[in-house]
Amino acid sequence: MIPDLAFLNRLADAAKAETLPRFRTGVAIDNKYKVGFDPVTEADQAAEEAIRALIKAEFPDHGILGEEHGGEGLDQDYVWVIDPIDGTRAFISGVPVWGTLIGLYHHGRAVMGMMDQPFTGERYLTVGDGTYYRGPEGEKRLKTRACTSLGEATLFTTSPFLYGPASAGSYKALEAQVRLARYGCDCYAFALLAAGHVDLVCEAGLKPYDIAALIPLIEQAGGVVTDWTGGRPEQGGDILAAGDPALHEKALALLASAAP
Amino acid sequence: MIPDLAFLNRLADAAKAETLPRFRTGVAIDNKYKVGFDPVTEADQAAEEAIRALIKAEFPDHGILGEEHGGEGLDQDYVWVIDPIDGTRAFISGVPVWGTLIGLYHHGRAVMGMMDQPFTGERYLTVGDGTYYRGPEGEKRLKTRACTSLGEATLFTTSPFLYGPASAGSYKALEAQVRLARYGCDCYAFALLAAGHVDLVCEAGLKPYDIAALIPLIEQAGGVVTDWTGGRPEQGGDILAAGDPALHEKALALLASAAP
Repeated sequence: MIPDLAFLNRLADAAKAETLPRFRTGVAIDNKYKVGFDPVTEADQAAEEAIRALIKAEFPDHGILGEEHGGEGLDQDYVWVIDPIDGTRAFISGVPVWGTLIGLYHHGRAVMGMMDQPFTGERYLTVGDGTYYRGPEGEKRLKTRACTSLGEATLFTTSPFLYGPASAGSYKALEAQVRLARYGCDCYAFALLAAGHVDLVCEAGLKPYDIAALIPLIEQAGGVVTDWTGGRPEQGGDILAAGDPALHEKALALLASAAP
Repeated sequence: MIPDLAFLNRLADAAKAETLPRFRTGVAIDNKYKVGFDPVTEADQAAEEAIRALIKAEFPDHGILGEEHGGEGLDQDYVWVIDPIDGTRAFISGVPVWGTLIGLYHHGRAVMGMMDQPFTGERYLTVGDGTYYRGPEGEKRLKTRACTSLGEATLFTTSPFLYGPASAGSYKALEAQVRLARYGCDCYAFALLAAGHVDLVCEAGLKPYDIAALIPLIEQAGGVVTDWTGGRPEQGGDILAAGDPALHEKALALLASAAP
Protein backbone atom coordinates (compact mmCIF):
# COMPACT_ATOMS: atom_id res chain seq x y z
CA MET A 1 0.00 0.00 0.00
CA ILE A 2 1.15 3.49 -0.93
CA PRO A 3 0.20 6.66 0.98
CA ASP A 4 -2.37 8.88 -0.73
CA LEU A 5 -3.58 12.49 -0.46
CA ALA A 6 -6.04 11.52 2.26
CA PHE A 7 -3.21 10.15 4.38
CA LEU A 8 -1.10 13.29 3.86
CA ASN A 9 -4.09 15.35 4.98
CA ARG A 10 -4.47 13.21 8.10
CA LEU A 11 -0.81 13.83 8.95
CA ALA A 12 -1.21 17.57 8.45
CA ASP A 13 -4.36 17.68 10.56
CA ALA A 14 -2.66 15.80 13.38
CA ALA A 15 0.31 18.19 13.33
CA LYS A 16 -1.94 21.25 13.15
CA ALA A 17 -3.76 20.13 16.30
CA GLU A 18 -0.42 20.43 18.13
CA THR A 19 1.01 23.55 16.49
CA LEU A 20 -1.80 26.02 15.92
CA PRO A 21 -3.11 26.17 19.51
CA ARG A 22 0.43 27.03 20.64
CA PHE A 23 1.08 29.71 17.97
CA ARG A 24 1.22 33.24 19.42
CA THR A 25 0.75 32.03 22.97
CA GLY A 26 4.22 32.65 24.33
CA VAL A 27 5.33 29.03 24.28
CA ALA A 28 8.38 28.04 26.26
CA ILE A 29 11.54 28.15 24.17
CA ASP A 30 14.56 25.98 24.81
CA ASN A 31 17.88 26.59 23.21
CA LYS A 32 18.81 23.44 21.34
CA TYR A 33 22.46 24.40 21.33
CA LYS A 34 24.47 26.30 23.89
CA VAL A 35 25.59 28.85 21.33
CA GLY A 36 23.41 30.55 18.75
CA PHE A 37 19.66 30.57 18.73
CA ASP A 38 17.79 27.54 17.53
CA PRO A 39 14.47 27.41 19.35
CA VAL A 40 12.56 24.22 19.81
CA THR A 41 9.05 24.49 21.01
CA GLU A 42 6.69 22.08 22.65
CA ALA A 43 4.69 22.40 19.48
CA ASP A 44 7.57 21.13 17.37
CA GLN A 45 8.06 18.02 19.49
CA ALA A 46 4.38 17.23 19.99
CA ALA A 47 3.62 17.62 16.28
CA GLU A 48 6.42 15.24 15.28
CA GLU A 49 5.21 12.67 17.80
CA ALA A 50 1.70 12.88 16.36
CA ILE A 51 2.98 12.44 12.80
CA ARG A 52 5.23 9.52 13.73
CA ALA A 53 2.41 7.74 15.54
CA LEU A 54 0.17 7.85 12.47
CA ILE A 55 2.94 6.67 10.14
CA LYS A 56 3.87 3.77 12.42
CA ALA A 57 0.26 2.67 12.68
CA GLU A 58 -0.36 2.72 8.91
CA PHE A 59 3.07 1.95 7.48
CA PRO A 60 5.04 0.03 10.11
CA ASP A 61 7.72 -1.00 7.60
CA HIS A 62 8.54 2.59 6.58
CA GLY A 63 11.54 4.44 7.98
CA ILE A 64 11.26 7.89 9.58
CA LEU A 65 13.74 10.78 9.79
CA GLY A 66 12.50 13.70 11.87
CA GLU A 67 14.09 16.94 12.98
CA GLU A 68 13.14 16.46 16.60
CA HIS A 69 13.31 12.74 17.24
CA GLY A 70 16.00 11.50 14.84
CA GLY A 71 16.02 8.53 12.45
CA GLU A 72 14.76 4.95 12.55
CA GLY A 73 14.54 2.37 9.77
CA LEU A 74 16.51 4.55 7.39
CA ASP A 75 17.45 1.49 5.31
CA GLN A 76 13.81 0.83 4.35
CA ASP A 77 12.54 1.37 0.77
CA TYR A 78 10.27 4.17 1.97
CA VAL A 79 11.49 6.78 4.44
CA TRP A 80 9.44 9.72 5.73
CA VAL A 81 11.37 12.94 6.24
CA ILE A 82 9.71 15.37 8.65
CA ASP A 83 10.19 18.90 9.93
CA PRO A 84 7.18 19.51 12.17
CA ILE A 85 7.80 23.28 12.26
CA ASP A 86 10.11 24.63 9.59
CA GLY A 87 10.71 28.27 10.39
CA THR A 88 10.71 28.12 14.18
CA ARG A 89 12.01 31.70 14.28
CA ALA A 90 8.95 32.84 12.36
CA PHE A 91 6.78 30.73 14.67
CA ILE A 92 8.10 32.32 17.85
CA SER A 93 7.82 35.80 16.31
CA GLY A 94 4.17 35.36 15.41
CA VAL A 95 4.69 35.49 11.62
CA PRO A 96 2.61 32.91 9.75
CA VAL A 97 5.28 31.84 7.25
CA TRP A 98 6.38 28.70 9.09
CA GLY A 99 5.13 25.34 7.91
CA THR A 100 4.84 21.66 8.69
CA LEU A 101 6.95 19.72 6.19
CA ILE A 102 6.33 16.04 5.50
CA GLY A 103 8.10 14.29 2.64
CA LEU A 104 8.43 10.69 1.53
CA TYR A 105 11.55 9.22 -0.07
CA HIS A 106 11.53 6.02 -2.13
CA HIS A 107 15.02 4.57 -2.47
CA GLY A 108 16.37 7.97 -1.53
CA ARG A 109 14.33 9.95 -4.05
CA ALA A 110 11.60 12.39 -2.94
CA VAL A 111 8.28 11.18 -4.34
CA MET A 112 5.59 12.81 -2.17
CA GLY A 113 5.46 15.96 -0.13
CA MET A 114 3.36 18.45 1.78
CA MET A 115 3.72 21.92 3.29
CA ASP A 116 0.97 23.00 5.65
CA GLN A 117 0.53 26.50 7.12
CA PRO A 118 -2.22 26.14 9.71
CA PHE A 119 -2.77 29.83 10.57
CA THR A 120 -3.45 30.95 7.00
CA GLY A 121 -5.10 27.62 6.24
CA GLU A 122 -2.87 26.91 3.24
CA ARG A 123 -1.89 23.38 2.30
CA TYR A 124 0.41 22.46 -0.61
CA LEU A 125 0.69 18.78 -1.44
CA THR A 126 1.60 16.14 -3.98
CA VAL A 127 1.64 12.36 -4.19
CA GLY A 128 3.54 12.52 -7.47
CA ASP A 129 0.96 13.51 -10.10
CA GLY A 130 0.83 17.28 -9.85
CA THR A 131 1.04 19.76 -6.98
CA TYR A 132 -2.20 20.83 -5.36
CA TYR A 133 -3.18 23.81 -3.21
CA ARG A 134 -6.02 24.11 -0.75
CA GLY A 135 -6.59 27.34 1.14
CA PRO A 136 -8.18 30.78 1.10
CA GLU A 137 -7.87 30.85 -2.69
CA GLY A 138 -9.86 27.64 -3.04
CA GLU A 139 -8.56 24.36 -4.45
CA LYS A 140 -6.35 24.27 -7.51
CA ARG A 141 -3.49 22.58 -9.29
CA LEU A 142 -0.29 24.62 -9.17
CA LYS A 143 2.11 25.55 -11.94
CA THR A 144 5.34 27.51 -11.61
CA ARG A 145 5.58 30.66 -13.70
CA ALA A 146 7.76 31.36 -16.71
CA CYS A 147 10.70 33.71 -16.07
CA THR A 148 13.83 33.22 -18.12
CA SER A 149 15.69 36.40 -17.15
CA LEU A 150 17.51 36.99 -13.87
CA GLY A 151 16.76 40.69 -14.26
CA GLU A 152 13.02 39.95 -14.05
CA ALA A 153 13.23 37.46 -11.20
CA THR A 154 12.03 37.65 -7.60
CA LEU A 155 14.43 35.82 -5.26
CA PHE A 156 13.91 34.64 -1.70
CA THR A 157 16.40 33.59 0.92
CA THR A 158 15.89 33.16 4.65
CA SER A 159 18.66 35.62 5.46
CA PRO A 160 21.54 37.14 3.51
CA PHE A 161 23.72 36.31 6.51
CA LEU A 162 23.29 32.55 6.46
CA TYR A 163 26.05 32.16 3.88
CA GLY A 164 29.53 31.18 5.01
CA PRO A 165 32.85 32.11 3.36
CA ALA A 166 32.43 29.42 0.69
CA SER A 167 29.03 30.61 -0.48
CA ALA A 168 28.61 34.28 0.47
CA GLY A 169 30.17 35.60 -2.73
CA SER A 170 27.99 33.43 -4.92
CA TYR A 171 24.81 34.46 -3.13
CA LYS A 172 25.74 38.13 -3.36
CA ALA A 173 26.39 37.84 -7.07
CA LEU A 174 22.97 36.27 -7.56
CA GLU A 175 21.17 38.87 -5.43
CA ALA A 176 22.85 41.64 -7.43
CA GLN A 177 21.33 40.34 -10.67
CA VAL A 178 17.68 39.89 -9.69
CA ARG A 179 14.89 42.44 -9.75
CA LEU A 180 13.76 41.86 -6.19
CA ALA A 181 15.31 39.99 -3.25
CA ARG A 182 13.25 39.21 -0.16
CA TYR A 183 14.24 37.71 3.18
CA GLY A 184 12.69 35.72 5.92
CA CYS A 185 10.33 33.04 4.63
CA ASP A 186 11.93 29.58 5.07
CA CYS A 187 9.71 26.86 3.57
CA TYR A 188 6.95 29.30 2.69
CA ALA A 189 9.09 30.77 -0.09
CA PHE A 190 9.43 27.37 -1.77
CA ALA A 191 5.66 26.94 -1.65
CA LEU A 192 5.19 30.38 -3.24
CA LEU A 193 7.61 29.30 -5.96
CA ALA A 194 5.60 26.15 -6.64
CA ALA A 195 2.49 28.36 -6.85
CA GLY A 196 4.06 30.68 -9.44
CA HIS A 197 4.43 33.80 -7.27
CA VAL A 198 8.23 33.91 -7.03
CA ASP A 199 11.02 32.73 -9.31
CA LEU A 200 14.04 31.71 -7.24
CA VAL A 201 14.74 30.43 -3.75
CA CYS A 202 18.35 30.16 -2.62
CA GLU A 203 19.44 28.65 0.71
CA ALA A 204 22.61 27.38 2.33
CA GLY A 205 23.24 24.57 4.77
CA LEU A 206 19.81 22.94 4.68
CA LYS A 207 19.20 19.63 6.39
CA PRO A 208 17.35 16.87 4.52
CA TYR A 209 14.18 17.59 6.52
CA ASP A 210 14.29 21.28 5.51
CA ILE A 211 13.90 20.40 1.83
CA ALA A 212 12.53 16.84 1.51
CA ALA A 213 8.84 17.73 1.40
CA LEU A 214 9.43 20.67 -0.92
CA ILE A 215 11.27 18.79 -3.68
CA PRO A 216 8.26 17.01 -5.19
CA LEU A 217 6.04 20.10 -4.60
CA ILE A 218 8.38 22.09 -6.84
CA GLU A 219 9.11 19.37 -9.41
CA GLN A 220 5.46 18.39 -9.85
CA ALA A 221 4.57 22.06 -10.45
CA GLY A 222 7.13 22.39 -13.23
CA GLY A 223 10.09 23.79 -11.29
CA VAL A 224 13.63 22.59 -10.69
CA VAL A 225 15.41 22.17 -7.37
CA THR A 226 19.01 20.99 -6.98
CA ASP A 227 22.06 21.64 -4.89
CA TRP A 228 24.43 24.34 -6.13
CA THR A 229 26.35 21.84 -8.27
CA GLY A 230 23.17 20.80 -10.07
CA GLY A 231 22.95 17.51 -8.18
CA ARG A 232 19.91 15.98 -6.50
CA PRO A 233 18.76 17.95 -3.42
CA GLU A 234 17.49 15.09 -1.23
CA GLN A 235 20.42 15.32 1.20
CA GLY A 236 20.11 19.10 1.65
CA GLY A 237 23.13 21.40 1.70
CA ASP A 238 23.25 24.54 -0.44
CA ILE A 239 20.02 24.56 -2.44
CA LEU A 240 18.71 26.45 -5.46
CA ALA A 241 15.12 26.22 -6.66
CA ALA A 242 13.64 27.91 -9.72
CA GLY A 243 10.18 27.96 -11.21
CA ASP A 244 11.56 28.09 -14.75
CA PRO A 245 14.19 25.48 -15.78
CA ALA A 246 15.97 28.03 -18.02
CA LEU A 247 16.27 30.42 -15.09
CA HIS A 248 17.61 27.65 -12.89
CA GLU A 249 20.38 27.01 -15.39
CA LYS A 250 21.36 30.70 -15.49
CA ALA A 251 21.31 31.10 -11.72
CA LEU A 252 23.33 27.92 -11.22
CA ALA A 253 25.98 29.13 -13.67
CA LEU A 254 26.16 32.46 -11.88
CA LEU A 255 26.57 30.82 -8.46
CA ALA A 256 29.39 28.67 -9.86
CA SER A 257 31.16 31.54 -11.59
CA ALA A 258 31.24 33.60 -8.40
CA ALA A 259 32.51 30.77 -6.16
CA PRO A 260 35.86 31.42 -4.44
CA MET B 1 -18.90 63.94 14.57
CA ILE B 2 -15.87 61.75 15.21
CA PRO B 3 -15.12 58.53 13.32
CA ASP B 4 -15.72 55.32 15.25
CA LEU B 5 -14.71 51.66 14.99
CA ALA B 6 -17.61 50.97 12.64
CA PHE B 7 -16.33 53.61 10.24
CA LEU B 8 -12.77 52.22 10.38
CA ASN B 9 -14.19 48.80 9.58
CA ARG B 10 -16.08 50.22 6.59
CA LEU B 11 -12.85 51.73 5.28
CA ALA B 12 -11.01 48.44 5.69
CA ASP B 13 -13.77 46.49 3.98
CA ALA B 14 -13.79 48.90 1.04
CA ALA B 15 -10.02 48.60 0.64
CA LYS B 16 -10.09 44.83 0.97
CA ALA B 17 -12.61 44.60 -1.88
CA GLU B 18 -9.94 46.17 -4.13
CA THR B 19 -6.81 44.47 -2.79
CA LEU B 20 -7.63 40.86 -1.98
CA PRO B 21 -9.07 39.87 -5.39
CA ARG B 22 -5.83 41.13 -6.96
CA PHE B 23 -3.48 39.38 -4.52
CA ARG B 24 -1.55 36.49 -6.11
CA THR B 25 -3.08 37.10 -9.51
CA GLY B 26 -0.07 38.52 -11.33
CA VAL B 27 -1.23 42.13 -11.25
CA ALA B 28 0.42 44.62 -13.55
CA ILE B 29 3.35 46.36 -11.89
CA ASP B 30 4.53 49.84 -12.80
CA ASN B 31 7.79 51.24 -11.64
CA LYS B 32 7.05 54.41 -9.75
CA TYR B 33 10.57 55.66 -10.25
CA LYS B 34 12.96 55.12 -13.10
CA VAL B 35 15.63 53.74 -10.83
CA GLY B 36 15.19 51.18 -8.11
CA PHE B 37 12.09 49.08 -7.60
CA ASP B 38 9.01 50.63 -6.07
CA PRO B 39 6.00 48.81 -7.47
CA VAL B 40 2.59 50.34 -7.59
CA THR B 41 -0.28 48.08 -8.32
CA GLU B 42 -3.76 48.65 -9.56
CA ALA B 43 -4.83 47.37 -6.17
CA ASP B 44 -2.94 50.14 -4.41
CA GLN B 45 -4.54 52.89 -6.43
CA ALA B 46 -8.05 51.46 -6.44
CA ALA B 47 -7.98 50.84 -2.68
CA GLU B 48 -6.92 54.41 -1.93
CA GLU B 49 -9.68 55.76 -4.19
CA ALA B 50 -12.25 53.66 -2.34
CA ILE B 51 -11.00 54.87 1.05
CA ARG B 52 -10.94 58.53 -0.05
CA ALA B 53 -14.48 58.33 -1.42
CA LEU B 54 -15.85 57.08 1.90
CA ILE B 55 -13.97 59.71 3.92
CA LYS B 56 -15.11 62.53 1.64
CA ALA B 57 -18.72 61.39 1.88
CA GLU B 58 -18.74 61.15 5.67
CA PHE B 59 -16.19 63.78 6.71
CA PRO B 60 -15.97 66.36 3.93
CA ASP B 61 -14.08 68.82 6.15
CA HIS B 62 -11.26 66.35 6.92
CA GLY B 63 -7.95 66.48 5.09
CA ILE B 64 -6.42 63.43 3.41
CA LEU B 65 -2.81 62.43 2.78
CA GLY B 66 -2.40 59.24 0.76
CA GLU B 67 0.59 57.44 -0.68
CA GLU B 68 -0.90 57.15 -4.14
CA HIS B 69 -2.96 60.30 -4.63
CA GLY B 70 -1.16 62.92 -2.53
CA GLY B 71 -2.51 65.46 -0.04
CA GLU B 72 -5.57 67.71 0.15
CA GLY B 73 -6.87 69.81 3.05
CA LEU B 74 -3.72 69.21 5.05
CA ASP B 75 -4.43 72.35 7.15
CA GLN B 76 -7.68 70.88 8.54
CA ASP B 77 -7.97 69.85 12.23
CA TYR B 78 -8.40 66.23 11.21
CA VAL B 79 -6.24 64.67 8.52
CA TRP B 80 -6.41 61.03 7.38
CA VAL B 81 -3.08 59.45 6.50
CA ILE B 82 -3.35 56.41 4.23
CA ASP B 83 -1.13 53.74 2.76
CA PRO B 84 -3.50 51.45 0.86
CA ILE B 85 -0.89 48.70 0.57
CA ASP B 86 2.07 48.99 2.87
CA GLY B 87 4.54 46.29 1.87
CA THR B 88 3.98 46.28 -1.89
CA ARG B 89 7.06 44.07 -2.29
CA ALA B 90 5.43 41.47 -0.04
CA PHE B 91 2.18 41.88 -1.97
CA ILE B 92 3.77 41.20 -5.36
CA SER B 93 5.70 38.24 -3.93
CA GLY B 94 2.57 36.57 -2.57
CA VAL B 95 3.55 36.89 1.11
CA PRO B 96 0.61 37.90 3.34
CA VAL B 97 2.50 40.39 5.53
CA TRP B 98 1.40 43.54 3.67
CA GLY B 99 -1.38 45.64 5.13
CA THR B 100 -3.79 48.48 4.54
CA LEU B 101 -2.84 51.37 6.83
CA ILE B 102 -5.34 54.07 7.74
CA GLY B 103 -4.54 56.63 10.43
CA LEU B 104 -6.18 59.82 11.64
CA TYR B 105 -4.26 62.86 12.89
CA HIS B 106 -5.84 65.57 15.05
CA HIS B 107 -3.77 68.74 15.01
CA GLY B 108 -0.85 66.66 13.77
CA ARG B 109 -1.10 63.98 16.44
CA ALA B 110 -2.07 60.38 15.61
CA VAL B 111 -5.30 59.55 17.45
CA MET B 112 -6.84 56.61 15.57
CA GLY B 113 -5.40 53.86 13.44
CA MET B 114 -5.95 50.55 11.70
CA MET B 115 -3.88 47.84 10.03
CA ASP B 116 -5.81 45.31 7.99
CA GLN B 117 -4.38 42.11 6.44
CA PRO B 118 -7.13 40.77 4.22
CA PHE B 119 -5.62 37.38 3.28
CA THR B 120 -5.09 36.20 6.87
CA GLY B 121 -8.23 38.04 7.96
CA GLU B 122 -6.44 40.00 10.69
CA ARG B 123 -7.52 43.51 11.64
CA TYR B 124 -5.80 45.68 14.27
CA LEU B 125 -7.54 48.90 15.21
CA THR B 126 -7.98 51.67 17.73
CA VAL B 127 -10.05 54.82 18.06
CA GLY B 128 -8.02 55.91 21.09
CA ASP B 129 -9.25 53.73 23.96
CA GLY B 130 -7.22 50.55 23.58
CA THR B 131 -6.02 48.49 20.63
CA TYR B 132 -8.27 45.72 19.39
CA TYR B 133 -7.66 42.64 17.26
CA ARG B 134 -10.11 40.68 15.15
CA GLY B 135 -8.96 37.64 13.22
CA PRO B 136 -8.32 33.90 13.30
CA GLU B 137 -7.56 34.17 17.03
CA GLY B 138 -10.96 35.70 17.75
CA GLU B 139 -11.57 39.19 19.11
CA LYS B 140 -9.43 40.62 21.87
CA ARG B 141 -7.85 43.70 23.36
CA LEU B 142 -4.09 43.82 22.77
CA LYS B 143 -1.26 44.52 25.17
CA THR B 144 2.43 44.70 24.38
CA ARG B 145 4.65 42.32 26.30
CA ALA B 146 7.21 43.10 28.98
CA CYS B 147 10.84 42.79 27.92
CA THR B 148 13.38 45.05 29.58
CA SER B 149 16.58 43.43 28.27
CA LEU B 150 18.00 43.85 24.77
CA GLY B 151 19.52 40.39 25.11
CA GLU B 152 16.02 38.89 25.40
CA ALA B 153 14.43 40.95 22.64
CA THR B 154 13.13 39.98 19.21
CA LEU B 155 13.78 42.75 16.67
CA PHE B 156 12.23 43.31 13.23
CA THR B 157 13.36 45.47 10.37
CA THR B 158 12.24 45.40 6.76
CA SER B 159 15.80 44.91 5.51
CA PRO B 160 19.25 45.34 7.05
CA PHE B 161 20.19 47.14 3.83
CA LEU B 162 17.72 50.00 4.08
CA TYR B 163 20.07 51.98 6.32
CA GLY B 164 22.23 54.72 4.82
CA PRO B 165 25.67 55.88 6.01
CA ALA B 166 24.12 57.96 8.82
CA SER B 167 22.14 55.11 10.35
CA ALA B 168 23.77 51.81 9.31
CA GLY B 169 26.19 51.73 12.23
CA SER B 170 23.43 52.35 14.76
CA TYR B 171 21.21 49.65 13.33
CA LYS B 172 24.09 47.16 13.30
CA ALA B 173 24.88 47.91 16.93
CA LEU B 174 21.27 47.29 17.87
CA GLU B 175 21.02 44.05 15.89
CA ALA B 176 24.20 42.78 17.56
CA GLN B 177 22.62 43.11 21.01
CA VAL B 178 19.26 41.39 20.51
CA ARG B 179 18.45 37.72 20.80
CA LEU B 180 16.76 37.42 17.42
CA ALA B 181 16.60 39.73 14.40
CA ARG B 182 14.10 39.11 11.62
CA TYR B 183 13.65 40.76 8.24
CA GLY B 184 10.90 41.44 5.77
CA CYS B 185 7.62 42.37 7.45
CA ASP B 186 6.93 46.11 6.95
CA CYS B 187 3.75 47.16 8.83
CA TYR B 188 2.99 43.62 9.93
CA ALA B 189 5.92 43.71 12.37
CA PHE B 190 4.48 46.76 14.15
CA ALA B 191 1.13 44.99 14.49
CA LEU B 192 2.90 41.95 15.99
CA LEU B 193 4.60 44.30 18.43
CA ALA B 194 1.26 45.77 19.47
CA ALA B 195 -0.01 42.22 19.98
CA GLY B 196 2.90 41.29 22.26
CA HIS B 197 4.71 38.85 19.96
CA VAL B 198 7.83 40.90 19.25
CA ASP B 199 9.73 43.52 21.21
CA LEU B 200 11.37 45.99 18.83
CA VAL B 201 10.79 47.32 15.32
CA CYS B 202 13.45 49.54 13.77
CA GLU B 203 13.09 51.27 10.41
CA ALA B 204 14.76 54.06 8.47
CA GLY B 205 13.38 56.63 6.06
CA LEU B 206 9.67 56.05 6.65
CA LYS B 207 7.08 58.37 5.13
CA PRO B 208 4.25 59.64 7.33
CA TYR B 209 1.79 57.20 5.71
CA ASP B 210 4.14 54.26 6.55
CA ILE B 211 3.77 54.89 10.29
CA ALA B 212 0.67 57.07 10.90
CA ALA B 213 -1.84 54.26 11.43
CA LEU B 214 0.60 52.26 13.54
CA ILE B 215 1.38 54.94 16.13
CA PRO B 216 -1.91 54.76 18.07
CA LEU B 217 -2.05 50.96 17.64
CA ILE B 218 1.26 50.71 19.49
CA GLU B 219 0.63 53.46 22.06
CA GLN B 220 -2.84 52.22 22.97
CA ALA B 221 -1.42 48.73 23.53
CA GLY B 222 1.19 50.01 25.98
CA GLY B 223 4.16 50.47 23.66
CA VAL B 224 6.31 53.41 22.66
CA VAL B 225 7.11 54.64 19.16
CA THR B 226 9.34 57.63 18.38
CA ASP B 227 11.94 58.73 15.90
CA TRP B 228 15.55 57.90 16.74
CA THR B 229 15.97 61.11 18.73
CA GLY B 230 13.01 60.27 20.95
CA GLY B 231 10.72 62.77 19.22
CA ARG B 232 7.17 62.24 17.98
CA PRO B 233 6.97 59.86 15.00
CA GLU B 234 4.06 61.42 13.08
CA GLN B 235 6.29 62.78 10.31
CA GLY B 236 8.11 59.49 9.76
CA GLY B 237 11.87 59.31 9.26
CA ASP B 238 14.00 56.85 11.24
CA ILE B 239 11.63 55.09 13.62
CA LEU B 240 11.99 52.90 16.70
CA ALA B 241 9.09 51.11 18.34
CA ALA B 242 9.21 49.00 21.50
CA GLY B 243 6.58 47.06 23.38
CA ASP B 244 8.21 47.86 26.71
CA PRO B 245 9.01 51.52 27.53
CA ALA B 246 12.17 50.52 29.43
CA LEU B 247 13.43 48.60 26.41
CA HIS B 248 12.68 51.56 24.15
CA GLU B 249 14.88 53.74 26.32
CA LYS B 250 17.78 51.27 26.16
CA ALA B 251 17.51 50.77 22.42
CA LEU B 252 17.30 54.50 21.79
CA ALA B 253 20.44 55.10 23.85
CA LEU B 254 22.27 52.39 21.93
CA LEU B 255 21.26 53.84 18.55
CA ALA B 256 22.50 57.25 19.67
CA SER B 257 25.78 55.96 21.09
CA ALA B 258 26.62 54.18 17.82
CA ALA B 259 25.78 57.14 15.56
CA PRO B 260 28.65 58.43 13.42
